[in-house]
This record gives sequence, C-alpha cells and structure tokens, in this order.
Amino acid sequence: MAERALIDYIRGLAGSDGRALIGIGDDCAALRLPEGTVAVVTIDSVIEGVHCEPGTAPEMIGRKAVSRALSDIAAMAADPLCTVAAASFGPGLSEAGRRGLVRALCERGRELGAPLIGGDVASGAESTMVTVTALGSGDPSELVRRSGAEPGDLVCVTGSLGGSILGRHLTFDPRLREAAALRGRCRVHAMIDISDGLSTDALHLADESQVGFVIEEAAVPVSDSARRLAQTTGRSALDHAFDDGEDYELLFCVAADDARRLAEEGLAGTSVSIIGRVGEGRSSRRLAADGTERELTAGGWEHPGGG
Amino acid sequence: MAERALIDYIRGLAGSDGRALIGIGDDCAALRLPEGTVAVVTIDSVIEGVHCEPGTAPEMIGRKAVSRALSDIAAMAADPLCTVAAASFGPGLSEAGRRGLVRALCERGRELGAPLIGGDVASGAESTMVTVTALGSGDPSELVRRSGAEPGDLVCVTGSLGGSILGRHLTFDPRLREAAALRGRCRVHAMIDISDGLSTDALHLADESQVGFVIEEAAVPVSDSARRLAQTTGRSALDHAFDDGEDYELLFCVAADDARRLAEEGLAGTSVSIIGRVGEGRSSRRLAADGTERELTAGGWEHPGGG
Repeated sequence: MAERALIDYIRGLAGSDGRALIGIGDDCAALRLPEGTVAVVTIDSVIEGVHCEPGTAPEMIGRKAVSRALSDIAAMAADPLCTVAAASFGPGLSEAGRRGLVRALCERGRELGAPLIGGDVASGAESTMVTVTALGSGDPSELVRRSGAEPGDLVCVTGSLGGSILGRHLTFDPRLREAAALRGRCRVHAMIDISDGLSTDALHLADESQVGFVIEEAAVPVSDSARRLAQTTGRSALDHAFDDGEDYELLFCVAADDARRLAEEGLAGTSVSIIGRVGEGRSSRRLAADGTERELTAGGWEHPGGG
Repeated sequence: MAERALIDYIRGLAGSDGRALIGIGDDCAALRLPEGTVAVVTIDSVIEGVHCEPGTAPEMIGRKAVSRALSDIAAMAADPLCTVAAASFGPGLSEAGRRGLVRALCERGRELGAPLIGGDVASGAESTMVTVTALGSGDPSELVRRSGAEPGDLVCVTGSLGGSILGRHLTFDPRLREAAALRGRCRVHAMIDISDGLSTDALHLADESQVGFVIEEAAVPVSDSARRLAQTTGRSALDHAFDDGEDYELLFCVAADDARRLAEEGLAGTSVSIIGRVGEGRSSRRLAADGTERELTAGGWEHPGGG
C-alpha cells in the first residue's frame, strides 16, 4: 500500500480530536495546552527483536509503544494530551499488518487519553519499529521529578513486580489513573516508572535525589508471573521482582504518614506497598528478612531501550 | 558503551536550555510555551538505507533527522521550540559513531533554535535510525495550513529545485528564517515544505485546498544540482526539478500583489519564484514554454518517509 493511502486510512481512524486544532494530514499537528499548564514530552521506541520478540503481532508492537510513552507521562504525575508516532515497516509486514499496527496506535492512544494527532510512516526498514512521542500537561508546581526524595521519606511501589516477560510487558496499563490520584492525595517528592527493573530504577531515583534507599526484601510485592518464571529459570521469584525490566509500575517517595495512608487505601484500585525508606548516606542497601544487609546493585537488565 | 554512559554524555552536551523547565535525565522533559501560543508538533525518521545511503556518516544521519523535522515547523510558519529524539544503533556503529550521532542531534538542534531536551537510545537494531520530534509554537491565527489556497493566488517557491540526492538532502537548512520573514510580510494562504518533490507536493497543497494549480514550466527554478544530475540520468533538469524529492524548499500561495513583492525582494536572503497560479477547477496542469498544457501528475519519488 502506498504511503498516501495508509495516511488516509490513519486519518479516517483517528478522526478529529477536540484537543487538536490541526490533526493528521498537515505538516505539523497543533494543540492548545490547558490554561496555566506547561507541556511535558517524552519519546520511546519499540523495535521488533529488541523490545519484543521477532514475529510479535504488529498490533501489540503499536500498543506497547503507546503504553511505554504514556508510562513516562504518569511518572511525572502529568495529564496525557496526545501522541505522535513514526512507524517503519520491516519487509515481512503485510498490508493487513501495517493497518493493524496503525490502528493499534490510534485505539491505544484514545484509550489512554492521548489520541494520535500526527505521524510519519516509512517502508523499507529491516525490522518493524515504532517510535511514539507523548505530550502531556501539568501545573509546573505539581510535576514530580526523580530528584526530590528526602530523608525520612518512605519508598512505595504500585502493583507487583517481576516476570513481565511472560506477557505483561506488552499488555500493561500505564499507571495514569494511579498517578493522577496520587497527585491529588499528597505531595509526591520523587517518582519514576520501573522500566529497567526495581533495583536499577531505585538506584536512578536515589542517585538523582542524592540519597540512599534501604529496601526491605520481605516488603517487595512479588508478582505471580515472577513466581511462575522462577520455576523455569533457577532464580528466585524475589530476584525476578528486583531485577526484571518492564514492570511499568510507579516507584515513588512520600512522607511517612502519606505512605501509610496510601498503603492502606491503595490508588485508583491498585495496591501500594511500602518497600523501604530513605536511609542515611548515599549508598543504597537491601535488607533481607534475617536482618542481613547488602548493597543494592543494578541487577536489572539494562534494556537497550532506556527509560 | 552502556546506555547510561551515553545518556550522561548527551546530558553534558545538551547542557541546560532556558526553555526547558526539566531537561534530559527525567522521565519527561517539560517546557513552558510562549504566552498566547499553541504547540505545534511533528515527527520524522531517518533510516540508514531508506532515507540515506548505507554507510552515511552518523553525524549526517543525526543532522538530517533534525533538519527534516524543523522543515515541517517552517512549513507551518511556526517558531521552533525544542526537539526530542529516539536513536537506535545498528550493529556496525562504533562508540565513536554513536557519540557523533548524538552530538549532531544536540548541535543541529541548537543551531536551528530547537535544542534537544529529551530522548531515548536503543542498541540492537538492524540498521541505524533516528526519529526526531520537533515542538514549535505559534499564534493560532498565524499558523499556515495546507488547505487555504484561494482562487487568484499565485504559487511561489523558495530557492531552487532538483538534484538534492547529490548531497543537499543531507546538508540543507530548513527554511525557518524565510518562513518567519514570510509570516511578517503578508498573509500566507497555504504552505508545504517540498519533501516528496514539487509535482507531488503541489498536488498535496492543491488537493488540501480543493483547488487546481497551473504551473509554468519556464518559471520553475532549476538548481545547478538538477542540471548536473541530468547529465548522467538521461532525464531533463526540468524533470528533476519537478520530480526529485527532498528539496525542503517552501511552496506557498499568497495574493498576487504579495507574490510580486516577494519575488522582487526575496525572503531573508533567499530567492522567491512565482511558478504558477491557482486556476479554475480542481485539476492541476503544467504549462510548457510552447503553450501546450498537460496534467500535473505526481511524478515525485514517493519516498517512503512521508511528509
């Protein structure tokens, strides 16, 4: 299918979004930001054979690319606005596959409150790849950075961790509702979405905040997938929870009272676990159930896709 | 080089841009739009082997990706704000090549008034590829769409056309200054940047405006590169000017008086040629020097990268 026909197809699917002053089909899309807000922007790729298995359904490649970008919007506690996407198609991708991929970009963006308003398509690439830029908005005083964790804070995480390779890395829902609820409930000092694994991303958060974390192993919420995976890998389910990438859960630091309330009440129906605290000094440690301590090291698969 | 080290390298290069409230190193970048403006956004990829020859210097791949995205900002008559980029590195790309590519992204963005404020890097791709999202801003009443050409308008183009494959497709300067000057000088009814070739993009502009163009062949500015290329291809230099892609000149429609003034005075030091007019009816035609007419057909290489 010629480029033009595919763009017309996308234009029909995307329809017109109220936010877009100018949508698909011009040189740029244009949109108005909500009054008093600043723009937040992030870009993420999903490459067949790198971020997903060769032969992954094109719909899932598109879906994952949108979800990954929106997970970064959640991690700033920002509101989603829109997406733009660049897709390049590998030689094996049929016309139906191409349509399926772009349809997934449109549908997933709309589901997550960030409709597709522009893009670029290319054939002739050696593998299928999608790059999504998500735009969001936020009150500048409410955006949450990685760098604000304070002594006395408790370290919290949404959901459960590990084993996403069994499927959740494609199907996860970015924690947008949870982030919005969190922002409304308390002051969040620092936050990151877990894409590289708990151990790696906890170190990112601690380093950017110039603090050290003490993570209690017994408090880390281990997913059923991590347990299932552990039966085949010879590693413990806990190690999978610490080191597997692509959980896309929120890891954040708040004052102790806030943390206790969140752990009790959850966020938008999702559980919150207190897994540790900001300790003294700059080094981060893991505290085992038997009381022994060891350094927290970046055991997370440093997946080539970055954060 | 590990992902983290490369990100630290980029962070050092990018420095802090006054516009970015939050720059490289967090989950999203954040920026404030100028008062009273709306955001414009575009995304473009450059894939080694598709949009440039295999083996193209990584610096040139990065440079072209930034220039292409900013050319779309120019085509809306918007002001550049910033860029975010996703780079995936092919197996042959050395550490020095990776650094060269990301350095080019930073330097070219800064040169064009759109500093890099965020990104994503991935290894393991089958070929090197860069996707750049450019953000700009504009007064919503001054943004120029493809759809506003009116009966009586003249059709104008900046610079000269054809033969960009000889090198200009990598080194071109997007017409940002020309677009800003144009916006200040008259009301522009419709505009596009020529990425798919004059014939193809003139038809895009005419179709979106629901008009037909009459293009005078003798008025089309033929580049020296088109003439050089014609000596080896067996096609005429004029055909190269009509059909070659990637000129990245501005094609626009304005009232006749404005067009004559622009053709006399140029724009920011760049020549402007009146190459035709909006005709009667919806079909577009080419008018030869001997007075014969034929239909204007999309002879431009429909390059897979889109607009």
